[in-house]
Amino acid sequence: MTATLPETTGITGQMIIAGAHVRGSGQPVRAFNPATGETLEPAYHYGDSSHVDAACSAAAEAFAAYRATTAEQRAQFLEAIAANIEAVKDAIIARATAESGLPTARITGEVGRTTGQLRLFAGVLREGSWNHAVIDPAQPDRQPAPRPDIRQRSIALGPVAVFGASNFPLAFSVAGGDTASALAAGCPVVVKGHDAHPGTSELVGRAVTDAVAAAGLPAGTFSLLFGDGPDLGTTLVTDPRIKAVGFTGSRSGGTALVAAAAARPEPIPVYAEMSSINPVFLLDGALATRGAQLGEAFVASLTMGSGQFCTNPGLVIAVDGPGLDGFVAAARDALTGSPATPMLTPGIARSYATGVDALTQHAELVGRGQPGDSECACHAALFTTDAATFLKSEALQAEVFGSSSLIVRCKDAAEMRTVASTIEGQLTATVHADESDYASAGELLPLLELKAGRILFDGWPTGVEVGHAMVHGGPYPATSDSRTTSVGARAIERFLRPVSYQNVPKALLPSAIADGNPDKIWRRVDGQLTHD
Amino acid sequence: MTATLPETTGITGQMIIAGAHVRGSGQPVRAFNPATGETLEPAYHYGDSSHVDAACSAAAEAFAAYRATTAEQRAQFLEAIAANIEAVKDAIIARATAESGLPTARITGEVGRTTGQLRLFAGVLREGSWNHAVIDPAQPDRQPAPRPDIRQRSIALGPVAVFGASNFPLAFSVAGGDTASALAAGCPVVVKGHDAHPGTSELVGRAVTDAVAAAGLPAGTFSLLFGDGPDLGTTLVTDPRIKAVGFTGSRSGGTALVAAAAARPEPIPVYAEMSSINPVFLLDGALATRGAQLGEAFVASLTMGSGQFCTNPGLVIAVDGPGLDGFVAAARDALTGSPATPMLTPGIARSYATGVDALTQHAELVGRGQPGDSECACHAALFTTDAATFLKSEALQAEVFGSSSLIVRCKDAAEMRTVASTIEGQLTATVHADESDYASAGELLPLLELKAGRILFDGWPTGVEVGHAMVHGGPYPATSDSRTTSVGARAIERFLRPVSYQNVPKALLPSAIADGNPDKIWRRVDGQLTHD
Repeated sequence: MTATLPETTGITGQMIIAGAHVRGSGQPVRAFNPATGETLEPAYHYGDSSHVDAACSAAAEAFAAYRATTAEQRAQFLEAIAANIEAVKDAIIARATAESGLPTARITGEVGRTTGQLRLFAGVLREGSWNHAVIDPAQPDRQPAPRPDIRQRSIALGPVAVFGASNFPLAFSVAGGDTASALAAGCPVVVKGHDAHPGTSELVGRAVTDAVAAAGLPAGTFSLLFGDGPDLGTTLVTDPRIKAVGFTGSRSGGTALVAAAAARPEPIPVYAEMSSINPVFLLDGALATRGAQLGEAFVASLTMGSGQFCTNPGLVIAVDGPGLDGFVAAARDALTGSPATPMLTPGIARSYATGVDALTQHAELVGRGQPGDSECACHAALFTTDAATFLKSEALQAEVFGSSSLIVRCKDAAEMRTVASTIEGQLTATVHADESDYASAGELLPLLELKAGRILFDGWPTGVEVGHAMVHGGPYPATSDSRTTSVGARAIERFLRPVSYQNVPKALLPSAIADGNPDKIWRRVDGQLTHD
Repeated sequence: MTATLPETTGITGQMIIAGAHVRGSGQPVRAFNPATGETLEPAYHYGDSSHVDAACSAAAEAFAAYRATTAEQRAQFLEAIAANIEAVKDAIIARATAESGLPTARITGEVGRTTGQLRLFAGVLREGSWNHAVIDPAQPDRQPAPRPDIRQRSIALGPVAVFGASNFPLAFSVAGGDTASALAAGCPVVVKGHDAHPGTSELVGRAVTDAVAAAGLPAGTFSLLFGDGPDLGTTLVTDPRIKAVGFTGSRSGGTALVAAAAARPEPIPVYAEMSSINPVFLLDGALATRGAQLGEAFVASLTMGSGQFCTNPGLVIAVDGPGLDGFVAAARDALTGSPATPMLTPGIARSYATGVDALTQHAELVGRGQPGDSECACHAALFTTDAATFLKSEALQAEVFGSSSLIVRCKDAAEMRTVASTIEGQLTATVHADESDYASAGELLPLLELKAGRILFDGWPTGVEVGHAMVHGGPYPATSDSRTTSVGARAIERFLRPVSYQNVPKALLPSAIADGNPDKIWRRVDGQLTHD
C-alpha cells in the first residue's frame, strides 16, 4: 500500500546541495510506515560520488566566509533554523511519525529537543567560553630571555560530515546535535540523511537551507545527501575537504567510518556513538525497600520507544536474593502485559529478533512482552543468567538494539564489582541505592567512572538532558572518542582546534583575543580567568 | 674510545620498573658522545615483553590510588620531581651534554624548562579549571518533565605510554611535557627512554622514582623502559592497560604508533608530534627595510642546535625582488661562516645528509655552512626554488631534520598565498611584516590558521614558550591530533575525559562538583562560570 500524507505534500524527493534541489541518480527508495505497513511517497534517489563532490566542494568554498562570521551571527542563524523548524512543525511531526512509527507525543517532544539544542548552542556562542581565549602578555624584562606576547583561541576544523541516526529522526539527524554543534563551531555541514526518514530529512533540510539563504551565508554552508552508507558514506568521509565526522549508529557502521577516516592521507577525527548496553546496578537496600517498584519502572524504561535508544537498559546487575526475586517477578509481570510496539524499520526488527534468538542460546528467559502481528513489531524479551556465566560469555555483552535486557545475578557485592570492572565501555551506568547502600555504592562508583560517560542514581538511563553538564559519550565501544560528548554544550569542542598567536600585530588580532576584550567574553589572562 | 664521566658514576644501566631497578635482557647498547666520538658507559640492555607487562601491570594497579589523590597532592609530587632533578642537576647536565653533543648552556636551559614545566602543571592543578566542573542544578518544577541534577567533571584516562624524543633529552623526555601533563591528569606513566640519552633518562627516572616513594604513591605510578621502538614500543602501545600515548619523533615512527593504537581491540588516542617544516613568510615591506638583517637572524635560527628542532625554519616564502635578493645574500654569507656542529646521533647525521642530497636533486643550492670532520657533523645547507617548481614537488615539502632550508621565490603575493594554501599541516607559521604589509598579512593570516598550531610575527619559530597560551601542535602531519597541544597548560587535557553525574547522592559526589565548592575552583553553574 502506498500513501501520501497531505501535510507533507511539499516534499519533493530531492537532495539539497548548497541550496539547490537535486534529484539523485540511483534507484528509487521510499520511506515506510512501520506502524501501518504503508510505503510513503515520494521516491528518493541515492546520490553518487558527483553529488558528494559537489557538496564538499561547496562546503570547502563556504568555509572561509562561514567561519569568519561572528558568534552573534551564527547564534542568530541557529535560532533561525529553530524558528524555521517550528514554522513547519505540524508537517514535520506528521511525516516523522509516519516514517518512524513513533508516537506523536514522542516526536513532538523531539522537535522541542531539536530546537532547544539549536538555541542552547546559540547561548553557548554568545557566552563565548568556546573560544578558549588565553592571553600570556609579553614580559620584555624577563631573564634570561624576554617572553613574547602569546595568545590562543579556538577555530573551526573545516567542513563536517554528519550521519543521521535511525532512531531520532530529528534530534540526532539533519539538524540534530552534531549539525548544531558543528555549525556553531563555524564548520559547514554535509549531512547524509538516514533512509528511514528521508521526508523528515528533506523538511528539516529545507528549514536549514532557508536559514542559510536568509542570513546571507554561502550556500555551501549546508547540504543534505541521500545514499548508501558503505558507498556514499565512505566517499563522503574520505573526501579530502571533510575535516571531521559525526555519526550515531551501529558499531559496525561506526568502526567502518573510523577505519576509513584513519586510512586517509590526512586522517580526521570521527565522533561515532555506537554501542552500549547501559548496566543498571540494583543495590541491596534499594531492592529490599522497593524491588517490585523498580521492576515495573525498569520495564517502562526498557520498552519505551521499542527500546530503540542508545541508552536502553540492556543489563541489570544485582546480588541474588529475595529482593532481586521481587524485582524479577514484578518485571516479568509488567513485561508480560506490555504491548508490542513497532520498530523503526523491518531491518531493525529482523536484527532485534536475531539478537534475542542469540541470547536465548546463552541465558535463561524470564519473560516476553506481547507478540505483535506486524513485520516491525518488537516482541520485548528479558533474560537472566549468573555472573560466572556472564563473565565467560562475549555474546551476553553484545548490544541487542530494542527492548531486550539481561539480569545478571551475582553471589555478592564483590562479584558485582568484578562485573563492573569487566564490562566494555558504556554511555551510561545506573545505580539504584538506598542510604544504607552508600558505602557499597561508593566502592562501585570509581569502577563505573572508568566505564561510562554518565553515571546516574535512582533513575533510568533513557532520557538524555540537553544541557551544560551532560556527557553523552563514553569509553570504546560506546563511542570512538571518550574525550567528547555528542549531546550538550561541550559538543561544540569536537569541531574546534586551538591556535596560538605570537607577537601578532594588534591590528591583525582576532577580536576574541584582542586588547580590551571587545567580545566581552571570559578569557584566561596570565593564567587567571577574567571577564575584563 | 670509551669514557666514564665522573659526574655520572651513579647510573647503573638499568631500567626502573615500579621502583625496582631491573637489567634488560637484550644486547648491550651504549650512549655515544657525538661531539667527541666517545662511547659512554654503562651499557644499557633493551627490555622485552615481560618488562612491558610488569610496568603496565604495576601502572594499572597504581591507577586507582593515584587518580584518587587530590590535585594538591599531585601538585606537590610534581614539585618534588622538579626539586629532585635540581638536586642532581650537575650530573644531569654533564651526562646530557655528553650524550647529546649539545652545548652546556642549552642543556642548562633545558633543565630549567623541564622543572618549569613540572611547576606549571602544579599551578594548573591548584587553579582547578582542568576539572571542567559543571553543575546543572535540578529543576523539579520544570514542565513537561523535571530536570534532574546533573554535574560534570574530568577524570584521568588511565596509564599513559610516553616516548622520549631524541632532540630534547630533558624537556621532551623522561620527565618532559608528556610525562608532566599525564601525571598531572592523574595517569601513571610508562616511559620508553630514547637510546640517544639513556644515562640522562636513568638519572631523571630516579628523580621521579624517588618522588613517587617520598610521596607514598604506588610504585607503579612511574616506570622507565629501554627498548627497540618497533618491537618494545609497539608492545607497549598495544598493551590493553595503556590508555593513551605521547610521542615526539619522526613521521614514520608516529604514524606506526597511531596505526598500532588504532588496531587495538580498544583503540586509544595517540598524541604524536611528528613532522613540520615551519614556513616563514617574508613580506615586501619587511624585506625592503631589513632584508639583510632578517637573512642573518634566519641563519642563526636555522643552525641553532644543528637545526634539530621540530620548529626549525625549513621553508622561506617571499615574493622575488631586490629585497629577497638582499635576504638571500645575507643568509648565504652568514651560513658560509657558520661552523659545523654535531648532530645527536650518527643515524640522525646520516638521515640529514640523505635529505640534503635529495633536495640537491630538486632545488638550487644557495650555500652551505662549514663542513665538519666528525661522523655527526651537520653541514648546514640552504636551497632555493621558484614557487611553480615547489608546488609540483612533494620532495621539496619533506622535512629534513637538521639545518636545511628552502627559499621559495614567488612571482607575487597571490602565488605566496597559493603556497600557503597548498602546504601540509605545520607546527608553526611565521610572518615577517612591516606596518605597510599588514593588509597583505591580513590576507595570509586566515590561510595560515588552517595550516599551523602557532602563528608568529617578526620572530623565529625555534623557541617554544611553556605557558598557558602556547599551542605546540597543528594539523596532520605536524601532529596526529590537531585538537591538542603537547606544550603548555592545555597539554593536561589530552589525558582527561568528561564524566556526568546525574542525581548522584551528595555524600558520594567528588569534591570538584560537590555543593559549596570545597575545592574553591571555577565551575560552570547553570551555564555561568562562578567561583562561589
